[in-house]
Amino acid sequence: MTDDSDATGADALVRRVRDGDLRVHELEEHADADTAATARRRLVESETGVSLDAVGAYGFPADRADANIENMIGAAQIPMGVAGPVTVDGGALDGERYLPMATTEGALIASVNRGCSVVDAAGGATARVTKSGMTRAPVFRVADVAEAEALVAWVRDNEGTLREAAEATTSHGELQGVTPYVVGDSVFLRFRYDTKDAMGMNMATIATRAAAEVVEAETSASLVALSGNLCTDKKPAAINAVEGRGRSVTADVTLPRGVVEERLHTTPEAVAEVNTRKNHVGSAKAGSLGFNAHVANVVAAMFLATGQDAAQVVEGANAITTAEVREAGLYVSVSLASLEIGTVGGGTKLPTQGEGLELLGVAGGGDPAGSNADALAEAIAVGALAGELSLLAALGSRHLSSAHESLGR
Amino acid sequence: MTDDSDATGADALVRRVRDGDLRVHELEEHADADTAATARRRLVESETGVSLDAVGAYGFPADRADANIENMIGAAQIPMGVAGPVTVDGGALDGERYLPMATTEGALIASVNRGCSVVDAAGGATARVTKSGMTRAPVFRVADVAEAEALVAWVRDNEGTLREAAEATTSHGELQGVTPYVVGDSVFLRFRYDTKDAMGMNMATIATRAAAEVVEAETSASLVALSGNLCTDKKPAAINAVEGRGRSVTADVTLPRGVVEERLHTTPEAVAEVNTRKNHVGSAKAGSLGFNAHVANVVAAMFLATGQDAAQVVEGANAITTAEVREAGLYVSVSLASLEIGTVGGGTKLPTQGEGLELLGVAGGGDPAGSNADALAEAIAVGALAGELSLLAALGSRHLSSAHESLGR
Amino acid sequence: MTDDSDATGADALVRRVRDGDLRVHELEEHADADTAATARRRLVESETGVSLDAVGAYGFPADRADANIENMIGAAQIPMGVAGPVTVDGGALDGERYLPMATTEGALIASVNRGCSVVDAAGGATARVTKSGMTRAPVFRVADVAEAEALVAWVRDNEGTLREAAEATTSHGELQGVTPYVVGDSVFLRFRYDTKDAMGMNMATIATRAAAEVVEAETSASLVALSGNLCTDKKPAAINAVEGRGRSVTADVTLPRGVVEERLHTTPEAVAEVNTRKNHVGSAKAGSLGFNAHVANVVAAMFLATGQDAAQVVEGANAITTAEVREAGLYVSVSLASLEIGTVGGGTKLPTQGEGLELLGVAGGGDPAGSNADALAEAIAVGALAGELSLLAALGSRHLSSAHESLGR
Amino acid sequence: MTDDSDATGADALVRRVRDGDLRVHELEEHADADTAATARRRLVESETGVSLDAVGAYGFPADRADANIENMIGAAQIPMGVAGPVTVDGGALDGERYLPMATTEGALIASVNRGCSVVDAAGGATARVTKSGMTRAPVFRVADVAEAEALVAWVRDNEGTLREAAEATTSHGELQGVTPYVVGDSVFLRFRYDTKDAMGMNMATIATRAAAEVVEAETSASLVALSGNLCTDKKPAAINAVEGRGRSVTADVTLPRGVVEERLHTTPEAVAEVNTRKNHVGSAKAGSLGFNAHVANVVAAMFLATGQDAAQVVEGANAITTAEVREAGLYVSVSLASLEIGTVGGGTKLPTQGEGLELLGVAGGGDPAGSNADALAEAIAVGALAGELSLLAALGSRHLSSAHESLGR
Repeated sequence: MTDDSDATGADALVRRVRDGDLRVHELEEHADADTAATARRRLVESETGVSLDAVGAYGFPADRADANIENMIGAAQIPMGVAGPVTVDGGALDGERYLPMATTEGALIASVNRGCSVVDAAGGATARVTKSGMTRAPVFRVADVAEAEALVAWVRDNEGTLREAAEATTSHGELQGVTPYVVGDSVFLRFRYDTKDAMGMNMATIATRAAAEVVEAETSASLVALSGNLCTDKKPAAINAVEGRGRSVTADVTLPRGVVEERLHTTPEAVAEVNTRKNHVGSAKAGSLGFNAHVANVVAAMFLATGQDAAQVVEGANAITTAEVREAGLYVSVSLASLEIGTVGGGTKLPTQGEGLELLGVAGGGDPAGSNADALAEAIAVGALAGELSLLAALGSRHLSSAHESLGR
Repeated sequence: MTDDSDATGADALVRRVRDGDLRVHELEEHADADTAATARRRLVESETGVSLDAVGAYGFPADRADANIENMIGAAQIPMGVAGPVTVDGGALDGERYLPMATTEGALIASVNRGCSVVDAAGGATARVTKSGMTRAPVFRVADVAEAEALVAWVRDNEGTLREAAEATTSHGELQGVTPYVVGDSVFLRFRYDTKDAMGMNMATIATRAAAEVVEAETSASLVALSGNLCTDKKPAAINAVEGRGRSVTADVTLPRGVVEERLHTTPEAVAEVNTRKNHVGSAKAGSLGFNAHVANVVAAMFLATGQDAAQVVEGANAITTAEVREAGLYVSVSLASLEIGTVGGGTKLPTQGEGLELLGVAGGGDPAGSNADALAEAIAVGALAGELSLLAALGSRHLSSAHESLGR
Repeated sequence: MTDDSDATGADALVRRVRDGDLRVHELEEHADADTAATARRRLVESETGVSLDAVGAYGFPADRADANIENMIGAAQIPMGVAGPVTVDGGALDGERYLPMATTEGALIASVNRGCSVVDAAGGATARVTKSGMTRAPVFRVADVAEAEALVAWVRDNEGTLREAAEATTSHGELQGVTPYVVGDSVFLRFRYDTKDAMGMNMATIATRAAAEVVEAETSASLVALSGNLCTDKKPAAINAVEGRGRSVTADVTLPRGVVEERLHTTPEAVAEVNTRKNHVGSAKAGSLGFNAHVANVVAAMFLATGQDAAQVVEGANAITTAEVREAGLYVSVSLASLEIGTVGGGTKLPTQGEGLELLGVAGGGDPAGSNADALAEAIAVGALAGELSLLAALGSRHLSSAHESLGR
Repeated sequence: MTDDSDATGADALVRRVRDGDLRVHELEEHADADTAATARRRLVESETGVSLDAVGAYGFPADRADANIENMIGAAQIPMGVAGPVTVDGGALDGERYLPMATTEGALIASVNRGCSVVDAAGGATARVTKSGMTRAPVFRVADVAEAEALVAWVRDNEGTLREAAEATTSHGELQGVTPYVVGDSVFLRFRYDTKDAMGMNMATIATRAAAEVVEAETSASLVALSGNLCTDKKPAAINAVEGRGRSVTADVTLPRGVVEERLHTTPEAVAEVNTRKNHVGSAKAGSLGFNAHVANVVAAMFLATGQDAAQVVEGANAITTAEVREAGLYVSVSLASLEIGTVGGGTKLPTQGEGLELLGVAGGGDPAGSNADALAEAIAVGALAGELSLLAALGSRHLSSAHESLGR
């Protein structure tokens, strides 16, 4: 934000870098954050001949982001809009909410908005977090499988000790359990924590490091990596789709047949058929872990609007959509297995993202602890439900007219 | 951007909505984009009691985003920094580049920056796009497998007709081929296109719709959904990891042993071991499609900085990292199977994102067509390589010291 | 078969082994196959104190198995029965067939038999092979991705040369194509062959070895392994489920509602619901590549009865079952993506297995070549369909009565 | 076995079937098992014109198989041989063993035999069962996610009640736990049992049925299918590869460098490279759950020789092979995640299969209960290890000579 940066100071920094006196990543040690960002931006501009005016026109004090970025030059600005309001009957979230979404994909918010509107016409959506826990799984090296077996036994017998060590590092986190996995001379211990309103990756990492030190001290195992990829963080992985990571959350709704026909111009039968052939059979044939239409779109847009980690959109896509014809109309559900989210820490305190959370009424720590993150999970699940409904209905409606035409042939 | 919005106009719009004269999503039809966004923001603020000042302090004319968002209220601002510069010997990108990254994850850019620095100490990274093509796979309903077989035969015999229909809808796109998949009475046709510098989802969808109409007109098949999830878009899916989608791109480097030891404080052997136990064995045990440490982090950050679709970070995580000890030192590679990117269309024209592309020298259409998107793919792959190197080395270094300590016991 | 073995000769062999004159695996070089087996069995019996009378009571001349086994001591006898007859309207198989099945799982044949009976009540099943090709994928090492890219280009430009080399090794096989996959400095070339009535693994391996030698001679690539696991043989792998291996075959049937109700004591709706919740949603949640109830049971039993490779039951399980309510009643299909089978070579010439093939009318080479293996694939698919129908109906019937009871509560 | 069958009786049965007096599947109710099989075989022969002499020449009383087959006509005879002996240092198996294998794949036993020989040259293999439990996962229908959440809570609070109901059905089995999974209005409860020496599918099914009845009686949930595919039985599924099913078992060995060089004509480095590029990178790229060379071959052959369920070879292929160069030479391990086996029940009592178990010293119930099935798991794992070693070394040896030649160019 140029207003807060010190132009003269920036010039001075630029000079010192050119003189070889400072390095580009050290600027924050010699000036306030905005001045440093300005200087760095100018340096990059002059080296590359590219203007970075828009990047430099960010709207918050740079020091607000000092835990979120290094080598800052400004900000990317992602258009933000709202879908809804939509009524949610959740375990932690209750009532009407606007859903904040930041995206560059045209038609996405319009689609979710349409979905919210029919959900509301049906009285709102139900949502529940059905499982919760953040995981970290270090990998240890042992001599052979005999030692692996001994380590597994040791862990079973000493879970209390590991809990003590892990929980000593955190005022909030609670160790839920440790599951060992053996592959040859590698032993993976998957630690699972209740991290309350924090997404919890850092908390889990620090706590697990302490526990891993105990393992190394008390057994012959040697820690190879604090994350052994059985966590699994930011990779598509069945372990997350099956066992969950972060929040496992479902949203569902039953739309009266009239709503489907009048508002969505299709039928429960057509939507169910599209869902089966596309989301179930198509995804099955694709070797997929995501049996849905476009859940990732909503996850990504609400993650960006609320300060979540964009790389964890990966796990957010592990979702299954179901659609069935009931006497009452059309039942549709979306179950996200591994939604890794928080309302404290990470990007949640940045100004625009904090406002996104406020809009949902879930900013900061919840009461009881964890309830705000639960509520955020439910809000995202309802957004995903609205998005699925809208897209499935659009396909079903086209399919229906195509079927009509073909009947007319 | 409040400067450009018309405060009086916004007040008027707010009133008209409250009077039931307008609906919240119709504001852009009655005012310029900034005024509409201001009015909508105020409405949401007053309904919820939440201040959205930061969201409203966006730094670009709202009409620049009119193809990217509906129901706009402002923008999310994601801190943006740079890693590098790093030297790339690519098929389409050549020379030194700063890598723009927008992220809220502290330590990420510092980590990639460290990776870039050692890559450069080794003379830079090599990168190549090894496969390219955007896919769309509609699902058709047929009566039974006899009709399915007939449809497969018809497609094989009429690929020329389908190509003609598909390519008539686009000035740039080229149909590379159509692959049929049969599951009972569902037939999926996976269309693959060269979409040049566009990510190409829209182009592929429009072209495939035209081809699907020919299929419906000429055969007994009935289109159920234009996307049958065998595409596969925005879901983790083996078909993308195996066959690729968008760009399949690899970056690699061989670090001299001295660089590994002095700059990364570890050894080629330690890095290779971490890579094997974590990225290969751990991911194998997790049932993962991503055999890497944190490629999604770099993909997400560079996607946000360059206007890519954040939901496609999902497919960007389908990456395999390899590390091997060679006589020359440490060879490390990262192969991203399905990087769906473009330098035209989507979010690429937004001001901050456009500057991100400019910084890489890949904004707009390339010459030849497609070369800018290839270059962007190579830049992201090199960033991912730097990130992998840095994290693996950090783990290897800790592992090494832990091993030393344990030897000392 | 003890009748044909020479008891005195066996005694002599046993003595020579005990004297250290011969080794246990060399007996066939010094006696006929039955005598050698007898001697080896006695040696094992005396070393272990275990009687192997039943194993020794095999019913075929041991030399009939000399290409199938080493270190023979006799045979395992697996009970064999028949299901059916069932009427098949196939691309290669036509008319009524008994399905031979060898199994130790009680109730399996009864279940398939019941399925065959309702299929016949509906006029028989339709079956088609929709894709065919046996694959072998060697992995080559290259220096880096630049060399990988060059190899990919070379392969594209020299497919004719590779075809010539590959096809020179076989009188029947035809190379359908070569697909390259790059992961860092590993390049996998997936060769796909039409191997006619042979399962074709050996043919594909020999042909690919010749082609790989050309690659090594003409490029800088070095062959690391003739099978690089992208084939993929005898491992669960999405590449097979997606792209097929061996035969991709579907069988389907539409059962009139009356047949479902009277013969299966359930309804089309109940069967469809079981199929959705179990085979689709359950398998999705399990991270599965098999979306069926128990296809592997039928595949295994028919494999054993017809001399197929029991380890390839693995790929046989990559099957998707669909069930939908139609006006005409209940449509059910089973699509097996990767059924690796042959009617010549392997275990097909063994006496009992040969009779199993004869029973289906598919023994030996077909006319045209490949048609017998196609017919075998269709027979197995129809057996699988019958098994699915029967099990789904049993579940549906129980579900229905349970639902009735619960309505009564 | 024709000796025991009553030829006159068979003729009479044949006549009665032709007269429409009996049906083909009812013969066992009117004659002894051998006579019934003879009659059925003759009927099939006369209907099809195919001779089934070899199938009829089975070597055991048919009534020994009455729990294993229906509609019996005879037996398939699979050649059986032995590999080894090999020395095992297991948790349950100790000392030298011949490994019985029934197969039709030429060269397989020779290969495993070679592997056993080098394992023994290194002093034998180590093996351990690291996890154990047979699963059954019924799927229940609930009204919506609110009811799903309530069911999950009920299960957590009533695991004792479920255990009581489940264990009342079995004298041996113990319920280890119940894990709920929610997908929309489907709730899956994965029951996990210690089934001792039985493979346990039947025991688990019966026990789970009892527990499911309690669930239905006490909650609003309705049972849709006793197996909801989250078990997962006889399908490739990540849940088994990750969490295990049946026995999770590892075997490993460290071969001195001299043994690798002199006996296998390769080097530890070459074997490790083949393992990495083929079993790790190749399988990763294939989207596989099996990171091994040909474990399924050994699993299938030992399953057939010991009366296991051939369809469960599917899960047996969920195995990871590792190979690493150590100072001591070459460390190789094989970890099978889901080996579903038993030494009582199923096909284990059939004469030839029973002898296969006797040969391993694991027939019948173990002392303590479960130890025989553990020992069988360890024997199969060691066989798989020998097979992996042998094939990797063969590839490594060829690779090495190819590398030598190419150096000579």
